[in-house]
Amino acid sequence: MTMDRQSTARSVWRLAAAVLAAIAVPILAQAPAAPAAAPTRQALVNELVVANHILANEGVLDGYGHVSVRNPADPNRYLLARAGAPALVTSADITEYNLESEAVTNAANAGGTGYIERFIHGEIYKVRPDVMAIVHCHCLDVIPFAATTVPMQPMYHMGSFIGEGVPVWDIRTAGGTDMLVRNNQLGRSLAQTLGNKSVALMRGHGAAVVATSLHLVVGKAYYLNVNARLQLQAMQLAGGKVKYLDPEQAKNSAQDYERSWDFWKSRLPSK
Amino acid sequence: MTMDRQSTARSVWRLAAAVLAAIAVPILAQAPAAPAAAPTRQALVNELVVANHILANEGVLDGYGHVSVRNPADPNRYLLARAGAPALVTSADITEYNLESEAVTNAANAGGTGYIERFIHGEIYKVRPDVMAIVHCHCLDVIPFAATTVPMQPMYHMGSFIGEGVPVWDIRTAGGTDMLVRNNQLGRSLAQTLGNKSVALMRGHGAAVVATSLHLVVGKAYYLNVNARLQLQAMQLAGGKVKYLDPEQAKNSAQDYERSWDFWKSRLPSK
Amino acid sequence: MTMDRQSTARSVWRLAAAVLAAIAVPILAQAPAAPAAAPTRQALVNELVVANHILANEGVLDGYGHVSVRNPADPNRYLLARAGAPALVTSADITEYNLESEAVTNAANAGGTGYIERFIHGEIYKVRPDVMAIVHCHCLDVIPFAATTVPMQPMYHMGSFIGEGVPVWDIRTAGGTDMLVRNNQLGRSLAQTLGNKSVALMRGHGAAVVATSLHLVVGKAYYLNVNARLQLQAMQLAGGKVKYLDPEQAKNSAQDYERSWDFWKSRLPSK
Amino acid sequence: MTMDRQSTARSVWRLAAAVLAAIAVPILAQAPAAPAAAPTRQALVNELVVANHILANEGVLDGYGHVSVRNPADPNRYLLARAGAPALVTSADITEYNLESEAVTNAANAGGTGYIERFIHGEIYKVRPDVMAIVHCHCLDVIPFAATTVPMQPMYHMGSFIGEGVPVWDIRTAGGTDMLVRNNQLGRSLAQTLGNKSVALMRGHGAAVVATSLHLVVGKAYYLNVNARLQLQAMQLAGGKVKYLDPEQAKNSAQDYERSWDFWKSRLPSK
Repeated sequence: MTMDRQSTARSVWRLAAAVLAAIAVPILAQAPAAPAAAPTRQALVNELVVANHILANEGVLDGYGHVSVRNPADPNRYLLARAGAPALVTSADITEYNLESEAVTNAANAGGTGYIERFIHGEIYKVRPDVMAIVHCHCLDVIPFAATTVPMQPMYHMGSFIGEGVPVWDIRTAGGTDMLVRNNQLGRSLAQTLGNKSVALMRGHGAAVVATSLHLVVGKAYYLNVNARLQLQAMQLAGGKVKYLDPEQAKNSAQDYERSWDFWKSRLPSK
Repeated sequence: MTMDRQSTARSVWRLAAAVLAAIAVPILAQAPAAPAAAPTRQALVNELVVANHILANEGVLDGYGHVSVRNPADPNRYLLARAGAPALVTSADITEYNLESEAVTNAANAGGTGYIERFIHGEIYKVRPDVMAIVHCHCLDVIPFAATTVPMQPMYHMGSFIGEGVPVWDIRTAGGTDMLVRNNQLGRSLAQTLGNKSVALMRGHGAAVVATSLHLVVGKAYYLNVNARLQLQAMQLAGGKVKYLDPEQAKNSAQDYERSWDFWKSRLPSK
Repeated sequence: MTMDRQSTARSVWRLAAAVLAAIAVPILAQAPAAPAAAPTRQALVNELVVANHILANEGVLDGYGHVSVRNPADPNRYLLARAGAPALVTSADITEYNLESEAVTNAANAGGTGYIERFIHGEIYKVRPDVMAIVHCHCLDVIPFAATTVPMQPMYHMGSFIGEGVPVWDIRTAGGTDMLVRNNQLGRSLAQTLGNKSVALMRGHGAAVVATSLHLVVGKAYYLNVNARLQLQAMQLAGGKVKYLDPEQAKNSAQDYERSWDFWKSRLPSK
Repeated sequence: MTMDRQSTARSVWRLAAAVLAAIAVPILAQAPAAPAAAPTRQALVNELVVANHILANEGVLDGYGHVSVRNPADPNRYLLARAGAPALVTSADITEYNLESEAVTNAANAGGTGYIERFIHGEIYKVRPDVMAIVHCHCLDVIPFAATTVPMQPMYHMGSFIGEGVPVWDIRTAGGTDMLVRNNQLGRSLAQTLGNKSVALMRGHGAAVVATSLHLVVGKAYYLNVNARLQLQAMQLAGGKVKYLDPEQAKNSAQDYERSWDFWKSRLPSK
């Protein structure tokens, strides 16, 4: 609970910082004129495009899955690409949604339709004011955990957020007849299972990962998958006698993944 | 059975769509003249070349294995490259076969000979009118399943077609003395084991994967292999207590893999 | 034994074919003049360079390991690069050795020294007239088998040669104090363990792989490693109940790996 | 002990060689003028940059982890990049530290700060005069071993240094409240656990690897990770009956990894 309050405080601070940056950057960069909101939005759109490309290039997403970011200028809106392979997303694909997951921009775009499962994003943003970015992935090494009752555990500090606990959501319990989060009601159920954690696994499907920024959510999704592989290896090595990070250590070891972002960005194929 | 009827209906619809496209595309693109049939065939040949390259680039095929597509203009014919590494196939290699797997074009091509195992394709097309495309692969993570009696199970929606059941064919029971499907009789036996499913494993060899389109068959072959790896991991994690997609969920979760195709196509090395 | 006699017959035939090619190629290509031997040798040297690069690029060799080819014009000589990383070998590095593994060319090359373990090659060529090419590798997935008494088994037709049986050599039994085959006596012991097989594992070290041609030995070394990984997976899946190729099937399923060679060659990074 | 004395002797010899090189190289290369110290230092800085890039490119480091080298001209100083992703390190990032891990150059660099965990380096250099280079990594396949009491064992000669024994350090026993080596006291505790070995694992974190040169430490860090993967595979294959290198063999099989360095350097992406 303290953690939640801290998270909220942190995200408020980050929002404030983003707004300040929105004002400061154009002033510093091209002195007069340029209205504050526009460049910020474009910068955020560009970051979201990079996040899409990194997640595909590092194998967290393949042809499927998506990443969104809350609009810092309007917390009731979020940005998400229209339906398409993450590796191919461009800034023209980025669409703004309200929290009912209705498109408020780009709606009339020829050929562009929304991801069927955008409700994952809208419903989590509704109940988690601290969350500024969300990834929905089919991260491969996580799928086996989503199919069992073996709890995920933090193997090392890069996966410290796993120490919060990783609940597993089963769409059958929410009335889904296929595996897709096709409406707000299913999204709401997933958001409830997520609670105040960083990750909810989705049985037979993948995971939803949340964080207070785009850089953080990309890092968490990546290391969630790495940690899953390492935990399986450790269990193969020592069965039930693996020493995971203890809760205190995990809590004290939050990462910002900023160097990971720099590294992954530098590895993107040049177009 | 309902599913089979649906599949057939779908494939008829797709054939109709392909014919319409064959008419519409030249009309829209270069208005008068251009006869309808020619560009369609060339477009299909091009798609088949891309399918070859994707399957090699994504590791579903290596130097061996092949992919074919039924000729939508003549259901008693199919297109398949002449013998060679899939990554190196060009449109000049694409040969048309009748359902006895005799070459009807390209037969006199200098140096070009057919794949020894083309009978896999002909015999399946004979008994499965719904099937429009076939992959024969040695997909690595599938080989261990083909060597055991452990049934493949759908781990997530991307492998939902595995929920139909994946029979295993043993060439010894059909009188084969080596591992290759060298004639129509062996192909017929494999097609019988396949029945109305999407996949038959071939013991000590690989798999035959079928679908109602080229894009679908590439997606199924790819995710068959991914699902095999994930199932082994899940079994290592939880033994017999893995929760696979249940039959109803699997049936409701058919994928079209269109975004995968776009993604994989964008990853092909430029020549 | 029949197999051995057949292999010998085949290798004699191949030698004859190589000699014919040596005569025919210059005649066809640049009609008069050019003596037969020179271009053949250069072609063989070039093939050996390509074999080095393929083995490194496909992960069979890393910075260490080596590949040699017997000189078809003089069966008492073989060609091997001087000591260096296989990925960086050029035709200038190729040195000719007699079967005592003494350099007969290139000996005075500034800075060039022979691989310490060249005795592996010389001693095998001495006792196996059918062998025309040899790889010594530290292929990763093979190392665990070399450290246990679990026999390697053929998982599929691409690894059919494993059906001959894969003996394990322990350098301690031959008097080695470190892991390296530093002299003819140690090489002789390894060649004895190899016997008439395609592969001998070297405990705590790697493997020696032999074949009747360069293309074949590259294919065998590659699929030896793939088969090792698949066998471990199959054993994890089904314990002792894995159905390997039976001896008859394995014997009937020899591969030439020609398409693999084409594929791997096309994947080499351009310089 | 003998080994330690030998190591020290070797490192003294190497230091002498480096000093000689520092004198000889400029004399030979550009005859008069140029003071000896400057080019040597630049060459060392360049090697350290290459080491950073290799470790990232070969997957030993990702966005995190670091590599340092002792200044051969002043054994009480070491060189380490300022905080940043190893793949992106340039010579301008290389900073000189004293053994208290205080920056003695580059301190005023705009935006550049030291790695939080630089104390790993300073404290090990203090107590290990033979050590000339150190890697701190989160090498993935090593993490599971760091979370168990299963001792690492040398699988093959490339990992022979593992035969010295690989102790595991737990930061909790040294009073750490998160996982990071944030000060000299924690670094000292880690150095004590390391003792006279090549590697100490860090529970829930990674490893510290030391050697008598940059090339050696890069090779050891790389093969530490490879060996971890192979050991897990061997244990899955044969449980407790794996035959590791025996202590004598391991001791006699020290590698210099020079060909690995050449290979890895040739694989770096061109900028």
